[in-house]
Amino acid sequence: MDEEYDLVIVGGGCAGYPAGIYASRFNLKSIVITKLKGGLITTTDLVENYPGFISISGQELADKLEKHAVANDVEIIDDDVSEIKRNEKYFDVKLSYAEKTIKAKAIVLATGTEHRHLDVPGEKEFFGRGVSYCATCDCGFYKDKIVAVVGGSDSAAKEAMVLAQNSKKVYMFVRSKLRAEPINIDRLKANPKIEVIVGVKVKEIYGTNKVEGVLLDNGKKIELDGVFVAIGMLPQNELAKSLDVKLNEKGEIIIDKMSKTNQDGIFSAGDVTNMDWKQGIVAAAEGSIAGYSAFEYINEKFKKE
Amino acid sequence: MDEEYDLVIVGGGCAGYPAGIYASRFNLKSIVITKLKGGLITTTDLVENYPGFISISGQELADKLEKHAVANDVEIIDDDVSEIKRNEKYFDVKLSYAEKTIKAKAIVLATGTEHRHLDVPGEKEFFGRGVSYCATCDCGFYKDKIVAVVGGSDSAAKEAMVLAQNSKKVYMFVRSKLRAEPINIDRLKANPKIEVIVGVKVKEIYGTNKVEGVLLDNGKKIELDGVFVAIGMLPQNELAKSLDVKLNEKGEIIIDKMSKTNQDGIFSAGDVTNMDWKQGIVAAAEGSIAGYSAFEYINEKFKKE
Repeated sequence: MDEEYDLVIVGGGCAGYPAGIYASRFNLKSIVITKLKGGLITTTDLVENYPGFISISGQELADKLEKHAVANDVEIIDDDVSEIKRNEKYFDVKLSYAEKTIKAKAIVLATGTEHRHLDVPGEKEFFGRGVSYCATCDCGFYKDKIVAVVGGSDSAAKEAMVLAQNSKKVYMFVRSKLRAEPINIDRLKANPKIEVIVGVKVKEIYGTNKVEGVLLDNGKKIELDGVFVAIGMLPQNELAKSLDVKLNEKGEIIIDKMSKTNQDGIFSAGDVTNMDWKQGIVAAAEGSIAGYSAFEYINEKFKKE
Repeated sequence: MDEEYDLVIVGGGCAGYPAGIYASRFNLKSIVITKLKGGLITTTDLVENYPGFISISGQELADKLEKHAVANDVEIIDDDVSEIKRNEKYFDVKLSYAEKTIKAKAIVLATGTEHRHLDVPGEKEFFGRGVSYCATCDCGFYKDKIVAVVGGSDSAAKEAMVLAQNSKKVYMFVRSKLRAEPINIDRLKANPKIEVIVGVKVKEIYGTNKVEGVLLDNGKKIELDGVFVAIGMLPQNELAKSLDVKLNEKGEIIIDKMSKTNQDGIFSAGDVTNMDWKQGIVAAAEGSIAGYSAFEYINEKFKKE
């Protein structure tokens, strides 16, 4: 027998949990289905810009959001959604691991982003053996070693600073321009372990059993033990595409200020949406709004039952 | 001599402090000028829907936001802004109490809202002697007494529940329809002290030295000791108007999703803006975005200096 929910939220991160919190406050029976509890913010070492928390680890913030959702009776399960189909009034949501289908009156897509790849020789081969996408997760393996961060964003700068705490030397390979927050550019400059090299691309990651160095496009080889790729994120839009949800040219879900997509009953929030500026606090607000909009939608569409 | 800031933020609440937090992280010299530290959320008894805090008083949440701003070197002063004038590149911001003018490269208007009045006989006369706009502030005066809340919104429902903790009996006079969150409607119904009367207007508040009762539009008189008016909010848009900032029909400042107004260099965030759904978390996100947008604007406009 199918289980029935008012609201199914795909993705349990800074957007998904707040969507659940608000939906539950509006008496919707809600479930968050997430393949990574807490979402990508759990890989952030230190969050200093979620107003209300001066300094908190990404994992701690995610835990607080999850507990807040649980306290509001939101169900949370570790699983993946393989398919969503619209059937007359309801959506059928197929779970990958539980191998069952649940019904929903409305959907919030809070599927977030994943790391973009360099697509150079050695990257795939040495993943987990010197190639990483998360300094917070893997910095422990590089104590007193030489590492590099590839990328020039604020996230890349933070990765470099995390690594500099333990590693001997941290290169930052920046293709065009360092685009970090000024406060973090200052911190990079003040850190004697960090060397920022602007105007270079990584052409190859080489080694035998594990990473031994990188070849840059200026012909230079640099010996090192680890490469942290921080060149941006890819919106996780597969479910959105299959539901004919409108995307922008970057593949992000287009939402209006009430977190509505172009499809009735499908809402979206967080990093997967077309908000250029990806921040936990913005995701939390979009998620809260999505929970409220789902309530309004369900109230209107199902009120005669 | 004039003091000079990058960013002047008018209003220190759920929107103003986050604007300062972000602006400072972007190395802007920022100041928050506020006539009510923490803003209107300080009058809310319990906030259960700012994701990350399961349950916190409005005052505590405001304190956390303020401390977060202070930790990021945002200056905060208790004052009011009597005038803002655009002078070539800079804005001149005149302070009411300090009797000085400071310069700013950009402005964030986070001026919030104030309580709407009933405009009936007795309301003004008995203000502070039985008429109040804030249950959290004044409930202590009505222990074992009979009070009424006027209004049918979620805020009104919360006011009634705060009062029911100590008062003997709480009427709720609702003009057309109870529009509280379902969870709060349930709580109202479950509370034996609260009586909701729908379809009535208060015509007069009467008494001698203090409130003794109300006259309803159905001709009925109800004896009571206190009237809490909770019929909505008025956007504080005087500065916006004087700067030709575009407002909507409700008098709210129109912003885009980057918290920009129609006027170059003037940003806005929080309850004063045209976001229908007023929530602390939404204000915090809008404020954060305003801080970032101010940085981008200043960076672009003043970069050659």
